[in-house]
Amino acid sequence: MPEAVLQRAAAEMLDWHGSGMGVMEMSHRGKEFGAICTQAEADIRELLAVPSQFHILFMQGGGLGENAIVPMNLSRGTRADFVLTGSWSIKSHKEAQRYCEAKVVASNAADGHTRLPDPAGWQLSADASYVHVCTNETINGIEFQQLPDLAALGSKAPLVIDFSSHVASRPVDWSRVGLAFGGAQKNLGPAGLTIVIVRDDLLGHALQICPSAFNYKTVADNQSMYNTPPTWGIYIAGLTFQWLREQQEGELRGVAAMEARNIAKARLLYDFIDGSDFYANKVDPGCRSRMNVPFFLADESRNEAFLAGAREAGLLQLKGHKSVGGMRASIYNAMPLGGVQALVAYMREFERSRA
Amino acid sequence: MPEAVLQRAAAEMLDWHGSGMGVMEMSHRGKEFGAICTQAEADIRELLAVPSQFHILFMQGGGLGENAIVPMNLSRGTRADFVLTGSWSIKSHKEAQRYCEAKVVASNAADGHTRLPDPAGWQLSADASYVHVCTNETINGIEFQQLPDLAALGSKAPLVIDFSSHVASRPVDWSRVGLAFGGAQKNLGPAGLTIVIVRDDLLGHALQICPSAFNYKTVADNQSMYNTPPTWGIYIAGLTFQWLREQQEGELRGVAAMEARNIAKARLLYDFIDGSDFYANKVDPGCRSRMNVPFFLADESRNEAFLAGAREAGLLQLKGHKSVGGMRASIYNAMPLGGVQALVAYMREFERSRA
Repeated sequence: MPEAVLQRAAAEMLDWHGSGMGVMEMSHRGKEFGAICTQAEADIRELLAVPSQFHILFMQGGGLGENAIVPMNLSRGTRADFVLTGSWSIKSHKEAQRYCEAKVVASNAADGHTRLPDPAGWQLSADASYVHVCTNETINGIEFQQLPDLAALGSKAPLVIDFSSHVASRPVDWSRVGLAFGGAQKNLGPAGLTIVIVRDDLLGHALQICPSAFNYKTVADNQSMYNTPPTWGIYIAGLTFQWLREQQEGELRGVAAMEARNIAKARLLYDFIDGSDFYANKVDPGCRSRMNVPFFLADESRNEAFLAGAREAGLLQLKGHKSVGGMRASIYNAMPLGGVQALVAYMREFERSRA
Repeated sequence: MPEAVLQRAAAEMLDWHGSGMGVMEMSHRGKEFGAICTQAEADIRELLAVPSQFHILFMQGGGLGENAIVPMNLSRGTRADFVLTGSWSIKSHKEAQRYCEAKVVASNAADGHTRLPDPAGWQLSADASYVHVCTNETINGIEFQQLPDLAALGSKAPLVIDFSSHVASRPVDWSRVGLAFGGAQKNLGPAGLTIVIVRDDLLGHALQICPSAFNYKTVADNQSMYNTPPTWGIYIAGLTFQWLREQQEGELRGVAAMEARNIAKARLLYDFIDGSDFYANKVDPGCRSRMNVPFFLADESRNEAFLAGAREAGLLQLKGHKSVGGMRASIYNAMPLGGVQALVAYMREFERSRA
């Protein structure tokens, strides 16, 4: 997380803006928290250029919760289409089967989750209630570089994107999206806050068995305060939105500035890996994630030594997910270019010392 | 919230125990957060004297979320019994109807929610999957002074208690409870953390349509980490548990000490109200809440003046819920006796100045 956000949160812990209360002590119905929440919503709307026909909902339950909440709200108990591109979309598909006919319309399993299935080949249903894609797969390290244009592919269904792990790292083309959801913990704030951005016409179709607290229309009608919202998470996300809005790279600001930085960070790391025989990344260059970079040592017997040396150099959390193995560098928004430079320097030195 | 908790959270914001990370930056799967979560669970188990056959789950969604999550996990689609004692139990009953036959076995509506229905008169089902009571109704200001003994009343069903608003203010008689749930925001921590304490034999019976993230067995099998838990909320609740464990009144410690303080705080306020013709509380003295004290001015045209003067005296959030009107003092665990003394002093002076 940005250090400036943490410092401000610490400074305001016992007294937010002279109110005599810390944020955790506020009633969520009071005017102080109301101001925090309204500002956070306005800031993320501006940051992500969310059009006015979309509602921004602050919810609970995380991405895994949304795997059930989306079909409870959108599927109408009929059919939904799923594009399987890695661990997260596979989980979403499995969970949706509780609520609707969840059809797999494309999968990259045969490629070991290393390339995105070409949208031209997706077997989209004529009558799907929605089409689900995970636009960044953290474990496999693959990312949609542009959103599919479902209308051009012959589907009338709204596109649902799970953008948990790359929200605010790049712009969103809302003309192609019906609903976007994400846990906040990667780029926006602390765990426990879920952000749902949903087009107006998709509200009001929830199944009878959808809990009121997770019914998008109920949440929208109550400005995210039907049940007590995760107030601290909204506050911290709000501080992060303000931090993001202030970011600048040349002429670029906000999310565009973050995107430029993320492109530079990812290029540095992928170029180094591709230029080395010691390290390898197996993902198709056309869909490599800017956020999560899995890589392997050619000699995997050196994995432990690599990780131990990294820890000594202050480079933490580099072990790959157990389902993939190897290493994984997660270089979310808050990671500066200097962090990636330090990683590349360590990788170069580790390779040199083993040559 | 206890000031000591807020101060410690501020001090550790950028570096928790020399780890080089703040809690909001930790992976929930890392050893640092694992230690925080394990300690929090051990501390609440000791504080509330939770027997070993109960699981302690850290979840999301709040009390309103649990209104759906409980019947999805416990009702088996059959019947559940509800005792209606005020706003919260009425909401719970309404929501449960999505999942099972939700039977009203007693209600205090005819008494204007001012007295608890005598358990001897409850029309308990022979075959209920559970019996739901809200053990403290915040809006109406009524509280169970002891839990019903369902076995003695002829029911074999487990008792489910919504203890959101008085958890850790008094001991719990677990021999009478199957499941207890509560949002943490009143006595335990920030909004966004839900605590569920559930007996082992009640796991594993969820309906097919129960979301995985809210299936108690799934959550228990994964030590509350099936989905990313609300890490900050667990951390703050953990600090609050430690603060509670350190509290002492004479020979009493922890929750017993809190209970002694809460009895003293409530007695001071109720005795003052009962001794005045200017103020009144309508709740049967046998079930008055120690946490939430609704009261009315005999001359309600003075309400605005009362509230304005209170604000000037630094006494905030005294307006009663719109469904009840009048005033309401919420005197949760973190409110010291001095806070109640200041309120009573203000009320006495307001009365005197209007005499």
